[in-house]
Amino acid sequence: MITGKNQLGNSLSNLGTKSFKTFNPQQNKENEWNFFEANETEIETALKLADRAFETFQKASGASRALFLNTIADEIEALDDVLITTYCAETGLPEGRAKGERGRTMGQLRSFAKLVEEGSWVKASIDTAIPERQPFPKIDIRKMMAPLGTVVVFGASNFPLAYSTAGGDTASAFAAGCPVVVKSHPMHAGTGELVAHAINIAAKKTNMPDGVFSNLNSSGIEVGQKLVNHPLTKAVGFTGSIQGGRALFDMASRRKEPIPVFAEMGSVNPVIILPQALQLKGEAWAKTYAGSITLGTGQFCTNPGLLFAIKHDSLENFTTVLSEELLKIDASCMLHPTIQSNYSKNKSEMMEQDGLSITADLKTNTPPNFAKQAVVKVSGEKFISNTKLHQEVFGPFSMIVSCKDEEELVKAIQSMEGQLTGTIISENGEVDNSSVLVNTLQSKVGRLIFNGVPTGVEVCPSMQHGGPYPASTDSRFTAVGIHAIDRWVRPISFQNWPNHLLPNALMNENPLKIERLINGELTKRAI
Amino acid sequence: MITGKNQLGNSLSNLGTKSFKTFNPQQNKENEWNFFEANETEIETALKLADRAFETFQKASGASRALFLNTIADEIEALDDVLITTYCAETGLPEGRAKGERGRTMGQLRSFAKLVEEGSWVKASIDTAIPERQPFPKIDIRKMMAPLGTVVVFGASNFPLAYSTAGGDTASAFAAGCPVVVKSHPMHAGTGELVAHAINIAAKKTNMPDGVFSNLNSSGIEVGQKLVNHPLTKAVGFTGSIQGGRALFDMASRRKEPIPVFAEMGSVNPVIILPQALQLKGEAWAKTYAGSITLGTGQFCTNPGLLFAIKHDSLENFTTVLSEELLKIDASCMLHPTIQSNYSKNKSEMMEQDGLSITADLKTNTPPNFAKQAVVKVSGEKFISNTKLHQEVFGPFSMIVSCKDEEELVKAIQSMEGQLTGTIISENGEVDNSSVLVNTLQSKVGRLIFNGVPTGVEVCPSMQHGGPYPASTDSRFTAVGIHAIDRWVRPISFQNWPNHLLPNALMNENPLKIERLINGELTKRAI
Repeated sequence: MITGKNQLGNSLSNLGTKSFKTFNPQQNKENEWNFFEANETEIETALKLADRAFETFQKASGASRALFLNTIADEIEALDDVLITTYCAETGLPEGRAKGERGRTMGQLRSFAKLVEEGSWVKASIDTAIPERQPFPKIDIRKMMAPLGTVVVFGASNFPLAYSTAGGDTASAFAAGCPVVVKSHPMHAGTGELVAHAINIAAKKTNMPDGVFSNLNSSGIEVGQKLVNHPLTKAVGFTGSIQGGRALFDMASRRKEPIPVFAEMGSVNPVIILPQALQLKGEAWAKTYAGSITLGTGQFCTNPGLLFAIKHDSLENFTTVLSEELLKIDASCMLHPTIQSNYSKNKSEMMEQDGLSITADLKTNTPPNFAKQAVVKVSGEKFISNTKLHQEVFGPFSMIVSCKDEEELVKAIQSMEGQLTGTIISENGEVDNSSVLVNTLQSKVGRLIFNGVPTGVEVCPSMQHGGPYPASTDSRFTAVGIHAIDRWVRPISFQNWPNHLLPNALMNENPLKIERLINGELTKRAI
Repeated sequence: MITGKNQLGNSLSNLGTKSFKTFNPQQNKENEWNFFEANETEIETALKLADRAFETFQKASGASRALFLNTIADEIEALDDVLITTYCAETGLPEGRAKGERGRTMGQLRSFAKLVEEGSWVKASIDTAIPERQPFPKIDIRKMMAPLGTVVVFGASNFPLAYSTAGGDTASAFAAGCPVVVKSHPMHAGTGELVAHAINIAAKKTNMPDGVFSNLNSSGIEVGQKLVNHPLTKAVGFTGSIQGGRALFDMASRRKEPIPVFAEMGSVNPVIILPQALQLKGEAWAKTYAGSITLGTGQFCTNPGLLFAIKHDSLENFTTVLSEELLKIDASCMLHPTIQSNYSKNKSEMMEQDGLSITADLKTNTPPNFAKQAVVKVSGEKFISNTKLHQEVFGPFSMIVSCKDEEELVKAIQSMEGQLTGTIISENGEVDNSSVLVNTLQSKVGRLIFNGVPTGVEVCPSMQHGGPYPASTDSRFTAVGIHAIDRWVRPISFQNWPNHLLPNALMNENPLKIERLINGELTKRAI
């Protein structure tokens, strides 16, 4: 069933000479399939097909785009066991995770379907004419959101389904009316191909134009570079490392026509445990955090990599319990040997930093590609003066930062770069007296969490997944939830435009029955 | 009354050694005032004050920010004649224009005041908890828009009031809760200082923090460069040339922490006159367009620089009438000798292009700094093959592009870069049969106009002022109308956050009585 070919609109293609295989980290061996890297002709074909598809796809009704999205979800479900098996063979992740992520992916597709079927997301705004206004008549003007054009989506290593081929970026781009060209992630090209095939079947079943979707294989960076630099590409979605995301952002910014890049990148997700919480519930939080740090082998962008507290006996106790609990958890497999070796390397480099003590570091023998979880501890002073300590170690690793007082804690938070999340653990209302600390944390993050863990990203309208740089390249948008659609659209105004030629969303009759801002009032009424 | 000093929060300062004067183009002589260019210390002070002011300003209620904005409008009005006189002395524009622009500026300030006083603009979204949900409980999560931080605003040469010191960028940034540092435009530094003073009085009267606003003089590019590169700057607003806007965008993109730049840049605003309109109403449109081309000495970003039509006798007639009418209009003064000399140079260079015929070029003697309006004509074929012809000639200049058929016309539009506006002139419903043409035009512009002129930008919610690059650096935002506030804010989520610590907009009780998205339903109800 897996051909290893590139999906160019409705056709499969393997014109290139370069090929690669994916790897099963649990079995520590290559998978059987051979993937053909897209060559220049195939990149060109995918983008030209997408550009042609845009002509009709941008005009497709919300109902038909919803049908397309729902059918993609159905076709992914129809892949059934083969998808789960392939997912596990290419990631080392357990079946439960594969099924959970598949559920989330289908949920995302269906939530965007619901959004565009309802239709109000286009933010229709109408200011009607006032011909008698002095000194100049007011002319009728109407505005709505329209898609940007072809979106290039980069698959993410750690979310083969929810942030890759038919993940949130693709679902939101389709919902907006943008064709999508996916640069498949080389670590799970088989999973990607299966999903790409499902999308293609859905596109054909729902009469979408050929080229609305393409899936390109690549093992290196060249395919991605060519896609981002191509004049037919109009926006980019990326989830991955700071280095990778920044490289794409720089490339896109240097184009003759710069294009928006939404890159969701690294984050260490600071957690602040306030004194009373530490004293009264320190052990319980230590157990909870041992679980959060190791969840998914620590391979979540919301993994809690930094735990801040004020120096106290109870912090010693918390450290001991966290370290013990962490070592009780079974080691688990990482996504790929490269990710495992990077983890080992980054962990070692971190542990060699001056003033750092190691409070937990799994020493037992583990199978190949498994991560040895670890916790380290450092003073607030050392943390503030050494920005190397601020960097993410992607994997089941966390650092306790022991600050001498609240002032140093505030300074430590202030010294950090932007983050996806920031968490406050508080007991007996002690947070009420920490407004400077909370404000400082708020200025650094996209999401504030109270008495919880940052892992687990609820897909709902109120979720902000993104944050000040380098958490993402543009903190004004989110990668998760319905508002992720805003990344791929621009407003367009129609002045004095004939009613019968207006898009349905802006017609007098309000045929879509959507919420519209009419002369400043939000209403569903017709004009 | 004009001191020539920089306004640093509540203080005036002239630490630098460089100074300059503004110029009265009507009288062809320098104005009396001496302006002190901001030096490095002053730039640093302005940004540090702004950053400190942000701590409180970002938390100020909508009502208090509205009072600030309305008071700025009042204080600008209170400047009365001295503002109008200074404006005219520094721009060569007539008193009527000065008063009109002042009215628009006050209207903008008051419309943002109204927006933030009402409060729903923060897009509050609430998803309440479902503790019993399987397999995982759903946690309460809430989201709203929060300000980015200090915004640097560049004054625009052609709108000393509406796009400069207290113009749309400043008004929208204040409304969002962002402190503003203005880099005053050197051509109207006196007008800028008067308005800056008005803003400062308003800030003091309404108890805004010191540093919420600063105004820096500069005659070159260094002050702007330092402002954009400074780590405390969080976003940039600019209106001006493609070269200038792109330079700022490049600088901001290369920063360690890239920041958003909204630059509204050049546009030639294509107008397509369909065959029947040309035949039946060609003369009337020729007269209308002669007025639009010369309005404000052609110094509007929405000036119609390109008129497209299909070759026909009626196009000859249109060309003749437009040329005659244009020459009947009195020549008028440009903003500055530099702008006038650039106009002359760009016009001459354009007129030397191969295959171009000059159908109107004012030859009479005019006072210094006046622009000699002109119309030229070229074939569609030449236009498509020579992108030099696509460039803006800032001033009262327009080019008629005569296409051999509709196919060539579509190709000509397709060959263009992004534009602020695109206009269709149609008669007897002929536009109904031009869907390819209209779609092509739509893909290039931010605003489509039917049977009208692009000059005249109505300030209302449905106005899109911005467009595909290079009309602006990010087509997803507008520089005009209430949605301009979206440029300066980012979403922030609060997960499981204690109700009494939430921002008012997200509290259960809905104390601000704003529209909120609660579990997917737009409502003003409390929880």
